Amino acid sequence: MIREMCKKAKVAAFEMGKLSTDAKNAALHKMASALEANTEKILAANEVDVQIAKSKGVKAALLDRLALDQKKIQTVAKELKEVSALPDPIGSIISTWTRPNGLIISQVRVPMGVVGVIYESRPNVTADSAGICIKSGNAVILRGGSDALNSNLAIGEVLREALLSTNVPVDAIQVVPSPNRKVAEELMGMREYIDVLVPRGGADLIKTVIEKSRIPVIETGTGNCHVYVEEDADLQKATPIVINSKCQRPGTCNAAEKLLVHSKIATQYLPVVIAELRKNGVEVRGDEETRKIVPDVKAATEQDWGTEYLDLIMGVKVVKGLDEAIAHINNYGTHHSDSILTTDFGKAMQFIKEIDSAAVYWNAFTRFTDGNQFGLGAEIGISTQKLHVRGPMSVQHLTTTKYVILGDGQIRK
Amino acid sequence: MIREMCKKAKVAAFEMGKLSTDAKNAALHKMASALEANTEKILAANEVDVQIAKSKGVKAALLDRLALDQKKIQTVAKELKEVSALPDPIGSIISTWTRPNGLIISQVRVPMGVVGVIYESRPNVTADSAGICIKSGNAVILRGGSDALNSNLAIGEVLREALLSTNVPVDAIQVVPSPNRKVAEELMGMREYIDVLVPRGGADLIKTVIEKSRIPVIETGTGNCHVYVEEDADLQKATPIVINSKCQRPGTCNAAEKLLVHSKIATQYLPVVIAELRKNGVEVRGDEETRKIVPDVKAATEQDWGTEYLDLIMGVKVVKGLDEAIAHINNYGTHHSDSILTTDFGKAMQFIKEIDSAAVYWNAFTRFTDGNQFGLGAEIGISTQKLHVRGPMSVQHLTTTKYVILGDGQIRK
Repeated sequence: MIREMCKKAKVAAFEMGKLSTDAKNAALHKMASALEANTEKILAANEVDVQIAKSKGVKAALLDRLALDQKKIQTVAKELKEVSALPDPIGSIISTWTRPNGLIISQVRVPMGVVGVIYESRPNVTADSAGICIKSGNAVILRGGSDALNSNLAIGEVLREALLSTNVPVDAIQVVPSPNRKVAEELMGMREYIDVLVPRGGADLIKTVIEKSRIPVIETGTGNCHVYVEEDADLQKATPIVINSKCQRPGTCNAAEKLLVHSKIATQYLPVVIAELRKNGVEVRGDEETRKIVPDVKAATEQDWGTEYLDLIMGVKVVKGLDEAIAHINNYGTHHSDSILTTDFGKAMQFIKEIDSAAVYWNAFTRFTDGNQFGLGAEIGISTQKLHVRGPMSVQHLTTTKYVILGDGQIRK
Repeated sequence: MIREMCKKAKVAAFEMGKLSTDAKNAALHKMASALEANTEKILAANEVDVQIAKSKGVKAALLDRLALDQKKIQTVAKELKEVSALPDPIGSIISTWTRPNGLIISQVRVPMGVVGVIYESRPNVTADSAGICIKSGNAVILRGGSDALNSNLAIGEVLREALLSTNVPVDAIQVVPSPNRKVAEELMGMREYIDVLVPRGGADLIKTVIEKSRIPVIETGTGNCHVYVEEDADLQKATPIVINSKCQRPGTCNAAEKLLVHSKIATQYLPVVIAELRKNGVEVRGDEETRKIVPDVKAATEQDWGTEYLDLIMGVKVVKGLDEAIAHINNYGTHHSDSILTTDFGKAMQFIKEIDSAAVYWNAFTRFTDGNQFGLGAEIGISTQKLHVRGPMSVQHLTTTKYVILGDGQIRK
């Protein structure tokens, strides 16, 4: 079954590569309208998933991600229209040059081909991934979590029906109809047909995909992000940044998980910032030095330093200075987003140069690492790997390039 | 052992990221001088490998790749100096923009970190891979074929000694001292330390690395390249292109392996071009139509269409027209380099748009797909995958990017 789906996707991808921007945008609008027009059908399928999940006793947080309502569907529809408004990267000429022998070489942006997306229980990922893939000229195979199977199939059906009246081939969007793990593994072996695999979800899902996939994977998501407060930081500005980075949306990958403070200001600053964190409902876990200054803080374990809490918990550590902060972050972090708060240019430049992360901040909030916040548009994830794309992965990053060489009979001597 | 090497490489990579262009270039010059100064030592080690290989009865072609001489060493030394003369990609700012909230976002080019190279019996790959990695600010772990172990270790030792008197850390270059396959497999699992793995060699090596690696791989090398002659091609120019693409260096990945000819000109053109190929020592294998026109041509099998011969053999097929040619190339090719010979603009544009290959040629020779021929400088391979880099992979492609965000206390509301 998977092989058949892959073959269809490959054929669809070939057609996608020939489509105009207008044709893709028109399809995105039809997809958005179809979602709105079929809200009841989608909600009915979603209700089945929610009931099954409840009967299994799944956690409230998961139920929250799984459950759709009219507003969520409207949001997804709106996002599809926003994607249609983004610039089309396909066909843009990155550079052109002429060689001494007269050959004219151009590097041109082209679609990736077939994109596989493996995700967890958020059914809105089905529609938003499909939208980003269509805009970038790709065919997509979607494999969501088993908890959301009915919702995903309903959304897939609505989107495919919408494509019937467009120039985008119906098989540009396919939802894997089986929740079986073996089927997912089969999908991960289809290197012959699938050009890139994007896992969207928690650390476990990503780890499994990396272990099992034979297809190039773009690792997204896990963020053990740090804020480091230097001795010369403007503390008036520091506290709002720390609080906002931790609390504004603690369940996201770009939320801060750790606070590092320079030892010279620890005695003065830790009581203030810890009080403020607690006022905002944050559980603080500190190293020994922190606990000497604020004794009722819970002790952090070695494991804490490497953990992405995705919750109102923050690890706090006192460091001797910039070098220790940098070493700690590079060692325990996930190379996602890290911030230094300092008024010193030289220290900021050292931090920026030496921190090995997708996004490095000077005097700002880590949660700006986001396609829309960066001004790049909707994203399919935040890449924490170094290959192909690092940071927010938006429409332009689901493309590749091709060299086009125009000659007049040149040969090599 | 591998884990220890990886840890050292990681430490070296951190130091490499801080080096100036001058420091890296000075090291490349010292490396080049050291190779020349230690020619005898390297040749002695190489002689051991050659004798062992001879006693095992390896093929002449392999022996030729394995054996070094003074001239080959001088060439490698010269290439290291050429790499030092290339522009340094590190630190270049790809783009900078200001967001409505005042954040200044820049995308900056930074080294990849640790690069792993797994290759076969050509010992010159040891030095040239090391040079490209040093220039791009990376540490490298080199794992060559067991046949070249003594040569590779000698070259590695010479290069590392040369680094002692430079600012480049010695562990920026490490050669795996074991020919054991298990050790290579261990290396392929070191995702924690190695940022990218580049296999350099034949199809089997690349397949093994893709199967076993947990580290992102850049697939390089296999090239089943096509030349398609349209009915309106300038046949005066076509024959030199076909002959040159096939015969100039048949053992390279960018040599043409297949010739497709439009049926309308097949009767006229095939006898001419096949005679010319044979005059150049090429064995021709044809489809049924070809054999109707030139009966003494050997029959091509289904397997031929997918084979990279790397030899003076060419598969010849008659096609009904452009659509069949495109479908054949996309189906049987390796997405490396393919060429159309036509005087018709519309046909050329269709071929360019629809052929899914790293390099698509109009009226030119496929063997121009090469870092130096493109004007990009020395390459570590030709990528045939779509992720990260497609086509010649040169110094600039062994880098990644980092977002640097300068703020003044911005938070997200």
